Amino acid sequence: MNVHSKNVRTPETVTTGPLPGSRKIYLSPACSPDMRVPVREIPLDPSCSEPPLRVYDPSGPYTETDVRVDLAAGLPQVRESWIARREGLETYPGRAVKAEDNGNVSAEALVAPCPAQRILRRGREGGLVTQYEFARAGIITEEMIYVAHRENLGRETALAEAAERIKDGESFGAEIPEFVTPEFVRQEIARGRAIIPANINHTELEPMIIGRNFLVKINSNIGNSAVTSSVAEEVEKMVWSIRWGADTVMDLSTGRNIHNIRDWILRNSPVPIGTVPIYQALEKVDGDALKLDWEVFKDTLIEQAEQGVDYFTIHAGVRLAYVPLTASRVTGIVSRGGSIMARWCLSKHKESFLYERFDEICDIMRKYDVSFSLGDGLRPGCNADANDAAQFAELETLGELTKIAWDKGCQVMIEGPGHVPMHKIKHNMDKQLRECGEAPFYTLGPLTTDIAPGYDHITSAIGAAMIGWFGTAMLCYVTPKEHLGLPDRDDVKTGVITYRIAAHAADLAKGHPGARLRDDAMSRARFDFRWNDQFNIGLDPDTAHKFHDETLPKEAHKVAHFCSMCGPKFCSMKITQDLREESKAIATAQAEQGMAEKSAEFLEKGAKLYLEG
Amino acid sequence: MNVHSKNVRTPETVTTGPLPGSRKIYLSPACSPDMRVPVREIPLDPSCSEPPLRVYDPSGPYTETDVRVDLAAGLPQVRESWIARREGLETYPGRAVKAEDNGNVSAEALVAPCPAQRILRRGREGGLVTQYEFARAGIITEEMIYVAHRENLGRETALAEAAERIKDGESFGAEIPEFVTPEFVRQEIARGRAIIPANINHTELEPMIIGRNFLVKINSNIGNSAVTSSVAEEVEKMVWSIRWGADTVMDLSTGRNIHNIRDWILRNSPVPIGTVPIYQALEKVDGDALKLDWEVFKDTLIEQAEQGVDYFTIHAGVRLAYVPLTASRVTGIVSRGGSIMARWCLSKHKESFLYERFDEICDIMRKYDVSFSLGDGLRPGCNADANDAAQFAELETLGELTKIAWDKGCQVMIEGPGHVPMHKIKHNMDKQLRECGEAPFYTLGPLTTDIAPGYDHITSAIGAAMIGWFGTAMLCYVTPKEHLGLPDRDDVKTGVITYRIAAHAADLAKGHPGARLRDDAMSRARFDFRWNDQFNIGLDPDTAHKFHDETLPKEAHKVAHFCSMCGPKFCSMKITQDLREESKAIATAQAEQGMAEKSAEFLEKGAKLYLEG
Repeated sequence: MNVHSKNVRTPETVTTGPLPGSRKIYLSPACSPDMRVPVREIPLDPSCSEPPLRVYDPSGPYTETDVRVDLAAGLPQVRESWIARREGLETYPGRAVKAEDNGNVSAEALVAPCPAQRILRRGREGGLVTQYEFARAGIITEEMIYVAHRENLGRETALAEAAERIKDGESFGAEIPEFVTPEFVRQEIARGRAIIPANINHTELEPMIIGRNFLVKINSNIGNSAVTSSVAEEVEKMVWSIRWGADTVMDLSTGRNIHNIRDWILRNSPVPIGTVPIYQALEKVDGDALKLDWEVFKDTLIEQAEQGVDYFTIHAGVRLAYVPLTASRVTGIVSRGGSIMARWCLSKHKESFLYERFDEICDIMRKYDVSFSLGDGLRPGCNADANDAAQFAELETLGELTKIAWDKGCQVMIEGPGHVPMHKIKHNMDKQLRECGEAPFYTLGPLTTDIAPGYDHITSAIGAAMIGWFGTAMLCYVTPKEHLGLPDRDDVKTGVITYRIAAHAADLAKGHPGARLRDDAMSRARFDFRWNDQFNIGLDPDTAHKFHDETLPKEAHKVAHFCSMCGPKFCSMKITQDLREESKAIATAQAEQGMAEKSAEFLEKGAKLYLEG
Repeated sequence: MNVHSKNVRTPETVTTGPLPGSRKIYLSPACSPDMRVPVREIPLDPSCSEPPLRVYDPSGPYTETDVRVDLAAGLPQVRESWIARREGLETYPGRAVKAEDNGNVSAEALVAPCPAQRILRRGREGGLVTQYEFARAGIITEEMIYVAHRENLGRETALAEAAERIKDGESFGAEIPEFVTPEFVRQEIARGRAIIPANINHTELEPMIIGRNFLVKINSNIGNSAVTSSVAEEVEKMVWSIRWGADTVMDLSTGRNIHNIRDWILRNSPVPIGTVPIYQALEKVDGDALKLDWEVFKDTLIEQAEQGVDYFTIHAGVRLAYVPLTASRVTGIVSRGGSIMARWCLSKHKESFLYERFDEICDIMRKYDVSFSLGDGLRPGCNADANDAAQFAELETLGELTKIAWDKGCQVMIEGPGHVPMHKIKHNMDKQLRECGEAPFYTLGPLTTDIAPGYDHITSAIGAAMIGWFGTAMLCYVTPKEHLGLPDRDDVKTGVITYRIAAHAADLAKGHPGARLRDDAMSRARFDFRWNDQFNIGLDPDTAHKFHDETLPKEAHKVAHFCSMCGPKFCSMKITQDLREESKAIATAQAEQGMAEKSAEFLEKGAKLYLEG
């Protein structure tokens, strides 16, 4: 499918190696001993006698200890043997790459295609292709087994504490199991409540699942630079995002070389890659929305599907009749795809071709198992416009389209806002679940206030944590540069970490089994003054370490029983520990009688005589 | 009260001048033409024909355009003439400063006392002293008039849109008025639902109010450096905090020179200053908790009350009987004051002297109108310990103490956690309102997960925004250095801005009248591509400006009708604007028939023929 070229730009380097204090391991489900499911292990200080802490790890082979990366060869093809066995698929030569696919770039400026050789496939008519079709047919795929083991962090049975954890949360009607089985995964996919975005041509993918009854996921966005100095630089954006915890990556590139760069990214991506095909289609018609038509869009869908893109944002809910509903808005239409389609509809006085051709779009996407991410082209761009008629009219249409896509055998998730004040967030979630038959919700934030440019990772993390708690399955990150400029490397990292916080806070509040294990490990490390463990258990060991060392740089301080905040004299944890030592005798006595009982008794007596009597 | 000294360390400089694009103005309520209530005005680009945007401004005279600061003289005494007229007060010579007040520091290392001359006062027996006493007696004080005008941002009548705004929020039973009158302020204080922390000896204070039916406030913490190079450096910490929006500042200093540094801070602080007197008391007994007793504590209360401290954190709810309830916790007791008192109680087998002497504490605090901030010494230090028996036992005791303090004529607020997962936050608020008779809640965060050291401003902003929405009146900030080290200047700014976001998100969600005016002004500036207005309306103009210029540095780009994120071709707002231009004719036609009606009609027809018919 790709022509090899000598014209690959170097140096071809991306960030590799484990996170500080971590090691990547691979685990195999009992039922599939050949499968290798990645988990990150954080060994803890021997003084605590705790086993290594296992955490979910979307970072791919890049964080292996002695990894050797060859971008030109691409990642190992985790799924090739699974896919090769599927009878519903056929190989074929594929579409020829056109000059317009790369923005008609000149020969000198052309980024060479990725030389990695892959077998191109598509679904046959009537065969089983998509995860949804397999699930509906009662068949458990390798991907389902893989994600089940991944969600369990390699556990083979339910956590002893799991039941308690669940009872400790409020899941708003989600049905989070104590233990994720492949059959549970199948059921959730068959019901449309979860998706495994996994294009049959993205064989390098380490499968992951997006659904309300699984861990909350996050997405980061990348885009090409105006001047691409090397393909490694473009691949690095993806590698850097997943290193810090992005579960999927959307490539929002426009302009020159996007076909070839996308190829490099896909061949080297262990996570699902999403795109917005209308962006490239618009490029192909010289940026003139009015020249867009079904043919160029269809061709772009096939082009990207063959490359292995795992999900497409399709703004098919922006219907002609909804455009006037945005006229009285404070910020009108703020989605790029939405505004392109609105302009097309209104100028031509025609219904959107995405809406009218939705059946055909489904047929194409089914053939490659590209999942739908039904775009919210009319999402509010400010708090004033939240939950308005335009937004909800589109959401209702997305519900209608969801059912069509399911009928066609496709996997579907739904995109959501945007800018929403806190008191209007839950209504978004409830309406989405109702209108869209519980298809996974995938929201951008939402931003809970508009007044903090430079800090919109924070204004949106508040909304993201809340809507994640209420049921959103994946949160699209926002960086500090939102509304102001293009994120740099630091901004991307800040955005990803911030969204990992939001997603984890949501998992905790939902009562996701095992979610609190990491918090509790951190808390014990805090109480024991195991500083290195605190750094390593955290989402960003480097920053935590650096912050600590700014005040207490010496190695001896890593085992000091105090920190710089209160110093040794005022340390409350130290005092508590001393207090526990002092009261060991008391504790023994209490253990006999039962702590709670004793306390209750003291409370009754007014506690005046505690330990005197 | 203070002895003048030549030993003042220089250079005496703090940050002054207005925020970019802002000017401070002073407004007078119609009923009090001599009163000068500060507001920050942000003039907008003439192209938009909008009046200047007014925002709440706690930054004091430091942000005046041509301010001249003289730290040795202190700030103008806003309240001196009000206080001087109060018959319930008397002047007296005051307590002599002792060597131990400054940590027995050597003569060479002694920071000189602030030379600013002030009249020292205290309440007479039976006279009206506190804002609570005046309110209960039906008397409206100058402070009440001042804060009413301040909360209204100088408006003399209700906003036209106010009713709509309120309907747009969910206030969970708060009773937020469309317009704040002095009488409403009086009623809220009389009911104990709000406080104006305003020590009669802090005459430099620009009064502010803390209560569920007012704008949500934030606090920042400062502490002395191990080596103080100048008093200006210490005062600057307060000035820097309020510059970015801290409404009150807690001075958590320990060690040497704290008496004198506190004096410098108070004489130069336009915001309420809070302290935790047990910290200084512990210093006076060489850091040995077991040597603490009522006499040294009482002496410290009087010392600080005479200086003008506006609120004291008093951990009187840490009762002997509750200490064992913390034994099975993951992180025990994490409040410094709480652990000190727990140790004292358990080691001596005695009830806390703070609890036993609570009446006497009230009598002292009433004399100066020092407000209570009843400390949550048993707050959870991790998610695992949230909402446990120890925490709630203490909260019930704080409720009991609140009623005693009210009976004694004191103003009271209640401190709250801490570390709480999202689903357990609301219960904290509901229980606090119930147990403490709706006294204002003042919470630290809460942090919604424990796994992100280096980012706890964010883990806690999520919880802070939520609990603020649910009813918390003031949010104590958390900086990125929490759990790791001492915040530097940048950390303090980040913490303050982050908490301004949380507080504002809460105001919006509660439906606070006028809260959204700032968001809407920002949104209009965005839609109009008024970049300088966007920077200036935001919470941090400098950072927003810098971020924008990193990609588009030229001055011409400040009026460019696109930004660096999408570029001119893909700008959705530009497309929307163009679209509006194109469809002007349509809009006119629609105006005749009514937009909604038209849209509904199109929806029925399937919109296929829109604009063709």
